[in-house]
Amino acid sequence: MAAKQTAKLRIIPLGGLGEIGKNMTLIEYGDDIIVIDCGLAFPDEDMLGIDMVIPDMTYLEANTEKLRAFLITHGHEDHIGSLPYALQTLRAPIVGTPFTLALIEHKLEEHGITDADMLAVNAGDIMDFGCFKVEFIKVSHSIAGSVALAITTPLGTVIHTGDFKVDYTPIDDEPIDINRFAYYGSKGVLALMMDSTNAELEGVTPSEMELGKTFEKVFTEAKGRIIVASFASNVYRIQQVVDTAVRHKRVLCFQGRSMVYIAKVAAELGYLKLPENCVVELDDLKNYENDRVCVLTTGSQGESMSGLFRMANANHKLSVGSGDTVILSASAIPGNEKSVGRVINKLFQRGANVIYDRLADVHVSGHARREELRMMHRLLKPKYFIPVHGETRHLYRHAELAESIGVKNIFIMYNGDVLEITSKEAKKGAGVASNDLLVDGLGVGDIGASVLRERKTLSQSGLFGVVIPVFSSTGAIAGMPEIITKGFIYLKDSDGLINEAKQYAYDIASQYIDKHGLNDRTAFIAAIRSSMKGFLTERTKRSPIIMPVVVDIDI
Amino acid sequence: MAAKQTAKLRIIPLGGLGEIGKNMTLIEYGDDIIVIDCGLAFPDEDMLGIDMVIPDMTYLEANTEKLRAFLITHGHEDHIGSLPYALQTLRAPIVGTPFTLALIEHKLEEHGITDADMLAVNAGDIMDFGCFKVEFIKVSHSIAGSVALAITTPLGTVIHTGDFKVDYTPIDDEPIDINRFAYYGSKGVLALMMDSTNAELEGVTPSEMELGKTFEKVFTEAKGRIIVASFASNVYRIQQVVDTAVRHKRVLCFQGRSMVYIAKVAAELGYLKLPENCVVELDDLKNYENDRVCVLTTGSQGESMSGLFRMANANHKLSVGSGDTVILSASAIPGNEKSVGRVINKLFQRGANVIYDRLADVHVSGHARREELRMMHRLLKPKYFIPVHGETRHLYRHAELAESIGVKNIFIMYNGDVLEITSKEAKKGAGVASNDLLVDGLGVGDIGASVLRERKTLSQSGLFGVVIPVFSSTGAIAGMPEIITKGFIYLKDSDGLINEAKQYAYDIASQYIDKHGLNDRTAFIAAIRSSMKGFLTERTKRSPIIMPVVVDIDI
Repeated sequence: MAAKQTAKLRIIPLGGLGEIGKNMTLIEYGDDIIVIDCGLAFPDEDMLGIDMVIPDMTYLEANTEKLRAFLITHGHEDHIGSLPYALQTLRAPIVGTPFTLALIEHKLEEHGITDADMLAVNAGDIMDFGCFKVEFIKVSHSIAGSVALAITTPLGTVIHTGDFKVDYTPIDDEPIDINRFAYYGSKGVLALMMDSTNAELEGVTPSEMELGKTFEKVFTEAKGRIIVASFASNVYRIQQVVDTAVRHKRVLCFQGRSMVYIAKVAAELGYLKLPENCVVELDDLKNYENDRVCVLTTGSQGESMSGLFRMANANHKLSVGSGDTVILSASAIPGNEKSVGRVINKLFQRGANVIYDRLADVHVSGHARREELRMMHRLLKPKYFIPVHGETRHLYRHAELAESIGVKNIFIMYNGDVLEITSKEAKKGAGVASNDLLVDGLGVGDIGASVLRERKTLSQSGLFGVVIPVFSSTGAIAGMPEIITKGFIYLKDSDGLINEAKQYAYDIASQYIDKHGLNDRTAFIAAIRSSMKGFLTERTKRSPIIMPVVVDIDI
Repeated sequence: MAAKQTAKLRIIPLGGLGEIGKNMTLIEYGDDIIVIDCGLAFPDEDMLGIDMVIPDMTYLEANTEKLRAFLITHGHEDHIGSLPYALQTLRAPIVGTPFTLALIEHKLEEHGITDADMLAVNAGDIMDFGCFKVEFIKVSHSIAGSVALAITTPLGTVIHTGDFKVDYTPIDDEPIDINRFAYYGSKGVLALMMDSTNAELEGVTPSEMELGKTFEKVFTEAKGRIIVASFASNVYRIQQVVDTAVRHKRVLCFQGRSMVYIAKVAAELGYLKLPENCVVELDDLKNYENDRVCVLTTGSQGESMSGLFRMANANHKLSVGSGDTVILSASAIPGNEKSVGRVINKLFQRGANVIYDRLADVHVSGHARREELRMMHRLLKPKYFIPVHGETRHLYRHAELAESIGVKNIFIMYNGDVLEITSKEAKKGAGVASNDLLVDGLGVGDIGASVLRERKTLSQSGLFGVVIPVFSSTGAIAGMPEIITKGFIYLKDSDGLINEAKQYAYDIASQYIDKHGLNDRTAFIAAIRSSMKGFLTERTKRSPIIMPVVVDIDI
């Protein structure tokens, strides 16, 4: 059924607004929905034990028949990571550039999904999905194959920038296609969704090319091995290191699972140019003098099983030490500052010369700063503007910027909000479900606030269990209580306390039963918990979870 | 007994080297020991449930008769926080400037210690402690009353800078006393210990005065209330806000327990100048127009019970909203980035205009950068140099800086290392005990690695207990096992899994006992744990702590 011209265009972010992570937005018109990105978020530090967070797809699951495509702007986890979960209930072509699709395929394989429908596009392609005509526009970003989307709908064109920066001197000499943005801007843009990550920062994000100066300097001065840690997916960064190493007659060795995998795929697809015979295996490094060696590895965020972490902790065949130069070509993602700092400390302690962001220009962001955002607003002149991809403060700062240069009709939206656009106006409609779905092992969404609260308390003070055996028939105590603790106190040093606690539990349980009997188990457990809490607070000033357990003995 | 001229001078850091936190250093010569600072460290994120970390004072406790004084350079927690613990076994005069002593007294009172021997000094004072003659030298830092120490020993002068920066335009017009450093440098310095916190950063740390421009601009533009969050102990910062507010005819209201306390003490001691009638109580704010109000509060680190946090979360009488301007006059301490970000997000969402470090100059560090460190080295020209107050990377960067301008004999030391200096040479001797002592409630040092590991696992996957009642006499199972979980799964949705687990536990326990009996309880428990682990991994892919408990029934 063709969409009626009178239908509303609905823009529905399910993730990525009010947060950096799990980007996912629906564009709906009549009987058609297209999905832009399908990412995961890494858990907050208070989401204890959670592997990842994925968007709530309830609304999409209720409208599967409308789903036309997953359009993926680029291959970062916060844009592709939830696809394996989405595909459990939803099926539609997954559309992206070849590098993006290669990363998605790898991820789906890990989840045992081999029958997804993948549709490769290149920047410049235009393709129909239901009533939507979509052009993929080249943008600059910290991963190869990034595109923005120009979505022509029955009511006008919607532009989604994806993650972007403006780089006029990119490593692959394929700059952001500002001509196409200008084209759409001149034709008229109905609605614009633009990356807000760096909306707090004035000026422009430096070109990736700028880092070449730092690499050149370090490679010129280094006397021993050079080890570079970077994001594996930043093929441009890797290309710069490769080029510099080759120029300085060093062989290259890739270390770390994702680095090895991505280098291979990127080379096969032509995104990474590796001169012949420049790459060697770890075991062959011994055939080269130290000043002929460059190692590219993962671990720029201090991740505990990464290549660099293991090298720094002498838990890798390649042990870093005196004479080695280590470049951490990244900045710490918020939350990782301490783990990055610890790796740097270890490397210094092992005698390495460490180059990192406080000492040199070793990293540039993949996101546009305020002056680039202004250019994009001036090019596109949207009727409606929705800042996306950012925490609240980024969205507000982006809105303030847009307003200051004359953009009208700005909508600060959050996950689950719905913007309804007609030919006359745009306004927020009734929202859709947008819970954070927590993934823990095989469970999706089955860990809620109460379990997280328990984990929090357990992590702070542990558990103190009091097991009280009773005879079912008589309600009398059947033996001495057992005290079981985890994470509470070092047991071997605490015999005295534990024995006292046992006796105390026996006494209060006996007294309670003598007085009240055992008919109301809930009241009995509450009484034991309360008394033991008083006992432990007085003796230790600690507040573990106190768990009285009554075990029934049938004789 | 007088110290013999032939004795060794021993410098013994017990905390603050290889870390930012719990600064404490002993200077020992013959029969005399003086202690420089006695601070605490805040727990790392992997020290779950730990309140704080204090230095290992075993060596000092074994040499109490030598202890002459605790010399405290300034009143920050990482320099005074362990005093209540030290005073439990060690007694000596606590020496510091009046503001430092006021903060210490407050802390000791909280611990019920009212009989400490406090000795007030002022910058410029010279005093004997055993064989040591100590001069207290004014330095610039982010708290009032900071001093460096020039310690003249029988072998020469040891300089400890304390925490410092070089501020020629301080708010109180009392700049760092570089003349005294020059004096000691000209006389000859035996050993130097210098703050390394900012040894990664080139240039100089801006003067506190620089922030005046930002405050002036914000106060000029703001139309509603102004709320400034800052460290309570930074009296200079508070003075600037007070002065700006008074100039702009706004009354001041102090909020947050430590802000209220410190403002009171600082005003009483003359460190903070409060013009008459400029301070009002919260309840009186209603008598003033919004553009006549300035609130000073705690919470610049996003701390969860602080004034600003509660205002941002509408959990404070003073609810921040549209029209209000909030200044976070601080930078996030590493590890606090996310909590600070969350408070900023909340404030934006409530409609406030938020000014923070990514948008304006709202904070300067209290620590010297590289150019200031160079000046101090040029002034002091020490024979031996020990970089202090820093993580490993800071110490190494400081050592590299010193070496590059000709400093010889540099010792990178860690907690517990001992530098032995004679008239001929300096070298590292046998170390002393230097464990991190973890404080949890009333316990000091009783939480070790095994309990922390349990807390970590509990925090990730919770606990799964299997309580199996058995008859002591026969070893037979006396009832159905109980399953108890905490932090593992949401029980109300998991009846099926729990009932299956119960039956499974009953089956494997019965089978085990039929086959092996119950003589070897350890083996029985291991077998149950192993089987249940397999069961849970298959069903949930989660790995809680599995805790089989055998309850003995005596009949």
